[in-house]
Amino acid sequence: MTSKRLDNVGEYGLLKRLEKKLVSRSLPKGRVIVGIGDDAFAAILSKNKVLVVTKDMLVEDIHFRRRWIKPEDLGYKSMVVNLSDLAAMGGAKPLYALVGLGLPGDISVDFVDKLYIGLNKACSKYGCMIAGGDTVSTKKDIVISITLIGEMDKDKLVTRSGARPGDLVCVSGNFGDSAAGLHLLEEGRIKADSCGKKLIQKHLLPVPRLELAKKLSETGHVTSMIDSSDGLAASLKFITEKSCVGAEIDIEKIPVSKELLELSFKDRVVNPLRLALGGGEDYELVFTANPKVINNIKRFAEDIACIGVITKKKGLNYMSNGRAVKFGTLGYQAFI
Amino acid sequence: MTSKRLDNVGEYGLLKRLEKKLVSRSLPKGRVIVGIGDDAFAAILSKNKVLVVTKDMLVEDIHFRRRWIKPEDLGYKSMVVNLSDLAAMGGAKPLYALVGLGLPGDISVDFVDKLYIGLNKACSKYGCMIAGGDTVSTKKDIVISITLIGEMDKDKLVTRSGARPGDLVCVSGNFGDSAAGLHLLEEGRIKADSCGKKLIQKHLLPVPRLELAKKLSETGHVTSMIDSSDGLAASLKFITEKSCVGAEIDIEKIPVSKELLELSFKDRVVNPLRLALGGGEDYELVFTANPKVINNIKRFAEDIACIGVITKKKGLNYMSNGRAVKFGTLGYQAFI
Repeated sequence: MTSKRLDNVGEYGLLKRLEKKLVSRSLPKGRVIVGIGDDAFAAILSKNKVLVVTKDMLVEDIHFRRRWIKPEDLGYKSMVVNLSDLAAMGGAKPLYALVGLGLPGDISVDFVDKLYIGLNKACSKYGCMIAGGDTVSTKKDIVISITLIGEMDKDKLVTRSGARPGDLVCVSGNFGDSAAGLHLLEEGRIKADSCGKKLIQKHLLPVPRLELAKKLSETGHVTSMIDSSDGLAASLKFITEKSCVGAEIDIEKIPVSKELLELSFKDRVVNPLRLALGGGEDYELVFTANPKVINNIKRFAEDIACIGVITKKKGLNYMSNGRAVKFGTLGYQAFI
Repeated sequence: MTSKRLDNVGEYGLLKRLEKKLVSRSLPKGRVIVGIGDDAFAAILSKNKVLVVTKDMLVEDIHFRRRWIKPEDLGYKSMVVNLSDLAAMGGAKPLYALVGLGLPGDISVDFVDKLYIGLNKACSKYGCMIAGGDTVSTKKDIVISITLIGEMDKDKLVTRSGARPGDLVCVSGNFGDSAAGLHLLEEGRIKADSCGKKLIQKHLLPVPRLELAKKLSETGHVTSMIDSSDGLAASLKFITEKSCVGAEIDIEKIPVSKELLELSFKDRVVNPLRLALGGGEDYELVFTANPKVINNIKRFAEDIACIGVITKKKGLNYMSNGRAVKFGTLGYQAFI
């Protein structure tokens, strides 16, 4: 059976379809006053909570390729990258997502259905709902623009700018896996071995660290936090610049997975450290904390590592066995 | 002097530039806790107010063409289409805008600066601020995805679904001007006469009816409301369908401007009624109200007209001198 194309059903046909699916799935919830299908969405926020809002845009052939990622996974990941931003603020509670979709007319209705299955799956898992959005035509590429609205206690907010000299620089999880998975996909090695499959999975289905972030912020001793969407080096740069401090990072301590190491033995192009520092999309947490509380903090998750210390002197210094190491340009940035 | 291109300055260069401009312009405001330059934005909402959120996406060569519209006007209009959605809910107070920009690398920094001048201009005029967003690469086309957050009293919300049999169907302003302006632009008649210029202006720089919408909702007698972004016929369809009612519309009463009539005398392709019903982007209000209060309501604005009545029998009926008139397909919808 072939699925209908968007240029058959039209915008209103698609909207009616989506509305039915979404309304039955996600409404009514006590605090939502106007849901999908009006000019805007309206809801009551909790008292004494702070509104936390993030927005991330994904563009086809820039952030993903249609032939690599199933529509369901694409929907799921699009939501996760936004959930990860709420995590980075100190684990804000996700509430409402607005989904902007730019779609070419040759896309099938089935594709859009599956995309929404993925979006809804991520929402269900992390306790939020799709509350509205906009669906428009594009000439060729898929564009997914999600706005995620959450809430949290004001005194639990953790920004990028609170790191102080003497704080430890800590991270959750491993770095470079997502970039290695992307490398395998780019090379067309979709049917990789089990090690490769794990790396590809890390790229396609990242996990937002919402729960860990919440626990960290609740200690009151985490001074700054960011997610590693643009790579570890970029995350460290953002934290130190925003906090007007520097950092000394021990590159031996940067956690990399055994899968990434295994791949690097087989594939000489893969440099684990460069991928860990420069590769993005691991969506792990990078944060700074008072050294006194570090043992307490390490109990929250097995995969927390301390990789360096914040210095009064500005700039990022990477060290290996006490000697400074220089890297060229690291990481991804748009337009270049 | 030629302006730098985005692929020269890169994402971080652009973000630093934008941050400086935006932070100095719009921060601090009492209720904003985390502004631009972090993983998310955080703010305190007023007590006892309802959160109202809308999202609209504009795609190059679908919703606008670069050669027609100055970047400043493009920024301004992108914000207005979202402001108009807040108006349509009963005049919610606009607070925070999140701006998602997809930009090809060959765009100049100067273009982005001017786009933001327009965005900020609309924000300043209607009392909101840019609170964050996301800037990503596209291969070719500009994509502007704005999320606008507002607030209002819960009992002042007006949705599409409250129209009751016997209510009058009312509109603000004129219809078809924007579509006529678009027609002139499509035909390359940018250097139009003064009448044409006015129509083009209506297309490029629409006015959101926030103030009028607020006054209307405050009467407590406006039963449903929508803005006419997709054309009058589509607005009427949405209201009647959502309210499970029908409407009888007197086509002689649909307000059209003297400029549109003048153009139709000169240009036989231009059919004022078809443009009024089917052409979108006038961003006027379409609403229903109890007939008893209509004289009171008409005092709020000179340009309010009653064009028909809500019927118990479903469906939209267009009448001319007491006789039914049929139209073919009217209006724009995406993908088709």
